[in-house]
Amino acid sequence: MRYVVGIDIGGTNIVVGTVAEDGSEMLGLVSEPTISEQGANAVVGRITKLARASMAAARGHDVAGVGIGSPGPLNTTTGVVLLTPNLGWTNFPLRDRITEALGLPATLDNDANCAIFGEWWRGAARGSQHVVGLTIGTGIGGGIVLDGEVYRGASDIAGEIGHMTIDLNGRRCKCGNYGCLEAYASGPAIAARAVEGIADGTDTSLPKYVNGDLSKITAQLVYEAAHDGDDYALEVVKDTAKFLGVGVANIINIFNPQVVVICGGVTLAGERLFGPLRSEAKRRAFKPAVDVCRIVPGELTGTAGVYGAAAVFMRRTWGRV
Amino acid sequence: MRYVVGIDIGGTNIVVGTVAEDGSEMLGLVSEPTISEQGANAVVGRITKLARASMAAARGHDVAGVGIGSPGPLNTTTGVVLLTPNLGWTNFPLRDRITEALGLPATLDNDANCAIFGEWWRGAARGSQHVVGLTIGTGIGGGIVLDGEVYRGASDIAGEIGHMTIDLNGRRCKCGNYGCLEAYASGPAIAARAVEGIADGTDTSLPKYVNGDLSKITAQLVYEAAHDGDDYALEVVKDTAKFLGVGVANIINIFNPQVVVICGGVTLAGERLFGPLRSEAKRRAFKPAVDVCRIVPGELTGTAGVYGAAAVFMRRTWGRV
Repeated sequence: MRYVVGIDIGGTNIVVGTVAEDGSEMLGLVSEPTISEQGANAVVGRITKLARASMAAARGHDVAGVGIGSPGPLNTTTGVVLLTPNLGWTNFPLRDRITEALGLPATLDNDANCAIFGEWWRGAARGSQHVVGLTIGTGIGGGIVLDGEVYRGASDIAGEIGHMTIDLNGRRCKCGNYGCLEAYASGPAIAARAVEGIADGTDTSLPKYVNGDLSKITAQLVYEAAHDGDDYALEVVKDTAKFLGVGVANIINIFNPQVVVICGGVTLAGERLFGPLRSEAKRRAFKPAVDVCRIVPGELTGTAGVYGAAAVFMRRTWGRV
Repeated sequence: MRYVVGIDIGGTNIVVGTVAEDGSEMLGLVSEPTISEQGANAVVGRITKLARASMAAARGHDVAGVGIGSPGPLNTTTGVVLLTPNLGWTNFPLRDRITEALGLPATLDNDANCAIFGEWWRGAARGSQHVVGLTIGTGIGGGIVLDGEVYRGASDIAGEIGHMTIDLNGRRCKCGNYGCLEAYASGPAIAARAVEGIADGTDTSLPKYVNGDLSKITAQLVYEAAHDGDDYALEVVKDTAKFLGVGVANIINIFNPQVVVICGGVTLAGERLFGPLRSEAKRRAFKPAVDVCRIVPGELTGTAGVYGAAAVFMRRTWGRV
């Protein structure tokens, strides 16, 4: 049995684990803050330190390589990260830097691709032929797995589902466009919508959660207040479900997948979110497509990207996972 | 050299041709009105008559089978058309009826899939790896060709790009949903938007084209008036370009294809439509995805579906086109 180190680089944390080729176990799961403001070299140093710690935990096993998941856009062929505003990298040869540091072959892929490939391999979408997923956090990433392969498009950009326009004259998105799904349903967008309502004078207990400092309201706090029975917070969650439901309906009409998997902090909202989300998707999408599609939260909380990054290495190197 | 009969069944016309397996020629291109109100048997009779006429024109050549493109939803495995509101069919075993009538093996696929596969095989998207297309007429169909294969999804529904929501609180669509691309940019939707402006008192020469009978205004007449310099008609065309540009930007962000091909009557509007459409898509989609994507009108006017239906037969039967 061979093992592969999976590395998931996020804007906040780096997570690393060493994964068995049959996916049966993950050894040495370790994590540290990214601290991207210290520069690319410091981040690479932290990544290699974490990878060595993970491999040490897997001592005695045959570690064959490293799969890396990183924010993009990036080039999976050359292993270069073209641009990541969150990490501040431009044309950074991440894959080769990791290979040099660890003396192991490596592959590089988009973080959202890895997360959804992980959910397809070992998580909520296991064994399904066609899977499309969203990773909801600071932004909304997307991953597409068709016939068991990550679909990357002509230049590794495919899957930017968070930047699908759902309201052509709608909210401004960080990407510069108007009405992207991300502008409504990312973590910061959920918080921003909640704050707007409070600023408009809506009666809600939300300000109490942050001692009146509205800048501290987060999507997580909105879910918490909804859980505690705050009507307005519940309304914000329901609106989020509606926006996500529109996006998921579009995915269903376009891809007709067996599974739509939704990963990230938003899954903390549970059935309070997924119930109305499924209703909205069902109301909007074609029945014969909705009928064959499960809409589910991700199962591999915190490790989907690690499993997926390792799986991408296995697929590219050995032709299978 | 073998030949395959390609059959393109539309709500208005049936078009049939006999296509060489290398795509180098189409023999016996024939067409007749569908007249679906005469019932399924009459339509099958007309299809087989046209197929025999086409094969007669290809006399002396080896005709190996029949590829059929039909409105759906349908089942490509069983060859059954599940439901076509336009033709009035429910659970109709179209493929086997054609096989019995002609004594030739046949395949069935969605009409828009066939049109885009045809454009990929012999038309505007020839030789490209990933192609996504729209067929704009009474409705807006979509076709997805990835790695040279039609992508059909879990239950042959994939590619309903016309029913992608672009304005979640927008115009009502025939599908029951609100804000579908089709509700803005199909032929009837273009005409309806034009008529709404006239009803609001906009100054335009359009009513003169129909002797004041606004119910006779069509998308084609709008293009004609735009061509003749009518400012309002030009505005309707520009709005259409904007709506289509939003849809194309979504396609580019999701699929990162080499080509987006747009087929149907809308291509008559030419650069007056495609110019602003490309600008809108470029403004909205991710640069590294837009930069590698051509947005082009279909080239196989009236025959894309015939080429594509024949190509689907070849691919399914011989494993290649």
